[in-house]
Amino acid sequence: MASAFIFFDIPCKKSDKRWSLNTWKTRYTLHYKGLSYETQWVEYPHIEEACKKNGIPPLRKKPDGVSPHYTCPSLVDKSTGAALTDSVQIAQYLDKTYPHTPRVFPNDSDGLQFAFAELHDQRLAPGWPLIFPAVAKILNPPSAEYFYRTRTQAFGKPLEELIKSEEERVETMKKFKGLWDALEAWYSKTDGPFLMGEVISFADFVVASDVKFVLAAWGEGSVNWREFATWHGGKWVRLTEEVDKACGISG
Amino acid sequence: MASAFIFFDIPCKKSDKRWSLNTWKTRYTLHYKGLSYETQWVEYPHIEEACKKNGIPPLRKKPDGVSPHYTCPSLVDKSTGAALTDSVQIAQYLDKTYPHTPRVFPNDSDGLQFAFAELHDQRLAPGWPLIFPAVAKILNPPSAEYFYRTRTQAFGKPLEELIKSEEERVETMKKFKGLWDALEAWYSKTDGPFLMGEVISFADFVVASDVKFVLAAWGEGSVNWREFATWHGGKWVRLTEEVDKACGISG
Repeated sequence: MASAFIFFDIPCKKSDKRWSLNTWKTRYTLHYKGLSYETQWVEYPHIEEACKKNGIPPLRKKPDGVSPHYTCPSLVDKSTGAALTDSVQIAQYLDKTYPHTPRVFPNDSDGLQFAFAELHDQRLAPGWPLIFPAVAKILNPPSAEYFYRTRTQAFGKPLEELIKSEEERVETMKKFKGLWDALEAWYSKTDGPFLMGEVISFADFVVASDVKFVLAAWGEGSVNWREFATWHGGKWVRLTEEVDKACGISG
Repeated sequence: MASAFIFFDIPCKKSDKRWSLNTWKTRYTLHYKGLSYETQWVEYPHIEEACKKNGIPPLRKKPDGVSPHYTCPSLVDKSTGAALTDSVQIAQYLDKTYPHTPRVFPNDSDGLQFAFAELHDQRLAPGWPLIFPAVAKILNPPSAEYFYRTRTQAFGKPLEELIKSEEERVETMKKFKGLWDALEAWYSKTDGPFLMGEVISFADFVVASDVKFVLAAWGEGSVNWREFATWHGGKWVRLTEEVDKACGISG
């Protein structure tokens, strides 16, 4: 089947190129819906050009408050001509435009899903000092330079200075775990493996994308990953396997 | 009909006594489900005693990390003997125990609702400097003394020093409005008046309870309320009226 969508993603040095937190959410969405797509791999410095060329709008303004900020994931729907950005907006568009595909915002949960996705993303921040330096190392040179420079600006210091001792690493992992403790409490309120019980939804893609992201950044042999993988009895690795399976994604 | 539940709430000096943010969520839940209850009004310093007497567990530890912290809302179900605390836990208990009543966590949304309720509460914090001094003034003496003392401890300064100028008030209102801007964005993703579209749910009780709370604290004639009531074209007052109507609550 010819692909009906162009999916814009940022590559890394890994053989499968997949690492980006936010693009994973769209990859899960497309797979779960059974929509065929081709991936256009775009390094950070070329995202703006690729978006403009394809009529994809900016997501927001840059920190200067003026310049448009273009991001991945973005998506072009070749059937309708729609050009979209932002994993949550893309998900709602696909739910509405292709109502015969499985919904990622099932049971009228759109508003709650938008809230969860946005609030959850903000709550990842305590983990950035553990994750960003590792991300900078897995990116290809043009993206690595861009990522290192912009994140250094955001933190006001070089990324390698964010965690300077084992004590700081342990302390930061403890803060990062707080996020997962809250998630565990919420997941425990349901009667199934997913946040909506037996029904998989975008919220699970958000959580599984975090897992894919930290695994790609840290690497399987790292001390951070080995700790993370044991939290809550290995729940997050198991959930990600369930999400992969429901979406027909391997690895 | 004899009441089947005892609902523990904190009174204020207003003639209808209703003001408390968290107990409003349980009042909405009980009304929406058509469950008859009697209210036991308990001043802050007597909550622990009332809970212990009725077998109601503490919600968490106090800031000292040791002493149990008893809170309202609490609920005793006279039919089952269950004694509960915390508006979200109470809501889930009632959904599960009385499945013939309208669900406040409809469509398998329990996990998302727990997440929304917890994250939303945390996000109210920027508003406290505007709200807590006003709350202290509407409470009856024993609760007013308790509230003033514990909140002063939490902020590390007397409540009347939290907002000291019109400039600070305007600035703090602007921060508080940020919360409602985000809510507006999420509500706009649905096809109906509620966060789940046409389906009312606990999330709407959470939001309407905020509105009841700030109205009770600030008073209808206050500059804060008059500003708040115009945000997003009066959306929050209108939503609260819809929630009141769906629950058969007046005023």
